[in-house]
Amino acid sequence: MKEIDGGITAVPGIKTAGVASGIKATGTKDLIVIYCDELATSAGTFTTNKVKSAPVLVSMEHIKCGKAQAVVANSGNANASTGEQGIKDAKKMAELTAKELGISPEHVLVASTGKIGRFMPMDKVESGIKLAVSKLSYTGGHEAAQAIMTTDTFPKECAVEFELQGKKAHIGGMVKGAGMINPTMATMLCFITTDIDIEQNILQTALKTAVDKSFNMVSVDGDMSTNDTVIILANGKAGNEKISQQNSDYNEFFKALSHVTISLAKMIAKDGEGATKFIELQLKGAKSEDDARKATHAIAQSPLLKCALFGEDPNWGRIMSSLGSSRIDMDQNKVDIWFDDLKIVENGITTGFDVEKAKDILKKKEYIIAIDLKVGDAQGTLWTCDLSYDYVKINME
Amino acid sequence: MKEIDGGITAVPGIKTAGVASGIKATGTKDLIVIYCDELATSAGTFTTNKVKSAPVLVSMEHIKCGKAQAVVANSGNANASTGEQGIKDAKKMAELTAKELGISPEHVLVASTGKIGRFMPMDKVESGIKLAVSKLSYTGGHEAAQAIMTTDTFPKECAVEFELQGKKAHIGGMVKGAGMINPTMATMLCFITTDIDIEQNILQTALKTAVDKSFNMVSVDGDMSTNDTVIILANGKAGNEKISQQNSDYNEFFKALSHVTISLAKMIAKDGEGATKFIELQLKGAKSEDDARKATHAIAQSPLLKCALFGEDPNWGRIMSSLGSSRIDMDQNKVDIWFDDLKIVENGITTGFDVEKAKDILKKKEYIIAIDLKVGDAQGTLWTCDLSYDYVKINME
Repeated sequence: MKEIDGGITAVPGIKTAGVASGIKATGTKDLIVIYCDELATSAGTFTTNKVKSAPVLVSMEHIKCGKAQAVVANSGNANASTGEQGIKDAKKMAELTAKELGISPEHVLVASTGKIGRFMPMDKVESGIKLAVSKLSYTGGHEAAQAIMTTDTFPKECAVEFELQGKKAHIGGMVKGAGMINPTMATMLCFITTDIDIEQNILQTALKTAVDKSFNMVSVDGDMSTNDTVIILANGKAGNEKISQQNSDYNEFFKALSHVTISLAKMIAKDGEGATKFIELQLKGAKSEDDARKATHAIAQSPLLKCALFGEDPNWGRIMSSLGSSRIDMDQNKVDIWFDDLKIVENGITTGFDVEKAKDILKKKEYIIAIDLKVGDAQGTLWTCDLSYDYVKINME
Repeated sequence: MKEIDGGITAVPGIKTAGVASGIKATGTKDLIVIYCDELATSAGTFTTNKVKSAPVLVSMEHIKCGKAQAVVANSGNANASTGEQGIKDAKKMAELTAKELGISPEHVLVASTGKIGRFMPMDKVESGIKLAVSKLSYTGGHEAAQAIMTTDTFPKECAVEFELQGKKAHIGGMVKGAGMINPTMATMLCFITTDIDIEQNILQTALKTAVDKSFNMVSVDGDMSTNDTVIILANGKAGNEKISQQNSDYNEFFKALSHVTISLAKMIAKDGEGATKFIELQLKGAKSEDDARKATHAIAQSPLLKCALFGEDPNWGRIMSSLGSSRIDMDQNKVDIWFDDLKIVENGITTGFDVEKAKDILKKKEYIIAIDLKVGDAQGTLWTCDLSYDYVKINME
């Protein structure tokens, strides 16, 4: 397996384009269309928030058939909390895209991100879709990744080439998302393409499992924004024998898919709004994977700790307190904690570590906080960032 | 019932003093002793965090007998994550206080707040306790309220006088706590005194119920810091017939107790670290009280919303999204939302409200956000604040 350029269009048979439709008042690109030359096997994971945007509701309906050929997505307006009108508008987006492409509306998936509670400017959307379809290109991946950005400071793409049954196969992905301090509201849109041939139910399992270990470990969790969407399209062009069970071929594919989703997930944490630090949180010795997930999320969701990390203060007490509040199985007198390879806590109390050494680690742009609960064998890894003045600035505006 | 001056010493038979023992490097007051002339009936609620400070563990043990005569508390050091040494030190604090007062160590409760993971400077603590006991005064309430402050910007006290069986009765309280953005780590210490005569189990019920509707509705919830402690001492000096069941006398007492705890809870929200706004969050129409509690906490724990409130931006979409992420029973198409008396959302979509009017409300120092879920009859009220640059500044240092 090797990383390659091209984002979602690194995969044969995939075209895309991003255009400025005028949804964003700034005039920057805000609408994309993704198109597969052939009808693709399709799977998706969507927000578990009880307040679901109209495009999420429409895509959840459309994806039931297990096939899709196009995606239409916009930034600048979430089309959430928009009632019946919102549903009508999201359906209309699928219809307009289908009409331009000469395919069925049910084979078009819809995604939106932006402000909640505003109706879509459908005249702008309509001309934007026409323009995007006219500009579809086999090399449009990078442009599309830029067009779905909101508070993102850089486009997020990853593509890999790997071997499957002696044939070259590909996966390309792009993601949008930066507001990751609060998992309940950081909209994430992710579109993944691949040319492998795979059964729909197996594809769905692979996607769900990969998302759980990547995007759901950037504090996104089960608590998600109204619009969170991850979609994968598999067009079968690699010519492999169809994957229909979780065999070694599945494992090869899953490894490549995980590489793409984890790479994209890390980019989200690195681009956390106002973030100055990128932190990998490794937790082991938990009673269960669920405990590991809960504990890492509790720590990553502590504004108090995140402010300390911004201030480069080795305040490990805030880690202990977050752990204790996460309601997991634990014994405060067993916990060990490291900053990179410097052990700062052993059996719940300080090791008497060199504070200057600890500060030197916290001054770095990237470092690891490792925790061993020593009550079991389960583990989990999460990616997060610090909380700076700029986070407040970005979100007060 | 009327509010009176004097804090905890508004209650007959209660002495206290606050002194500078040197635990805080700044040389400000950091240690208090509270003393009842007679052995008092005592009840307490403590943090549910699995990482519990040494003083919490010791006080939980001491309060089992249902009686207490003194409290020793300090700021500047939490004595948490300090292992066996910490337990020894907390016990020693009780012993030293008991010795100075000539009472049993089991009748002394201990509380600490401050940095986690540091051992107590016991030499300073010992001389501090001696000094505090020598200064005990029937008018020391205000001084003691000052001595337990950490990042608090003002001391928080409330006392009431009310009638019980034709006799004058009193309740006095003081609380320390300001870091309330993140409920998992905002240490709160609260000491309440009263002169009513009451059975211990009834007192415990009253305290638990009052705490649930006050301090636990300032985003403190079940997730608490390692040190959270609420203690009540009832010395019986009012001379009422002992309250031994939840009758009308109990109701009178509970009303007065709730007045004190809610007043103190509101002060905590008003003094939120870096807060510029005080917001009362009223939620009704929930399926259950538990849903009302979950929903209000989900909203109050959203840094994204709190930044918008700091920026005086009527971004109600963030309220909808928080509601949806709280996993309560709800229908997004039924939700109504008001800022004060301006209805901004009806049945899940905008009312087309006057944005300038909404901004005028959000410019105020204090306002109400009201929500009607319209799926049941349960309700809840929570007090919170905004998230400003100063919150980051205070917590990075």
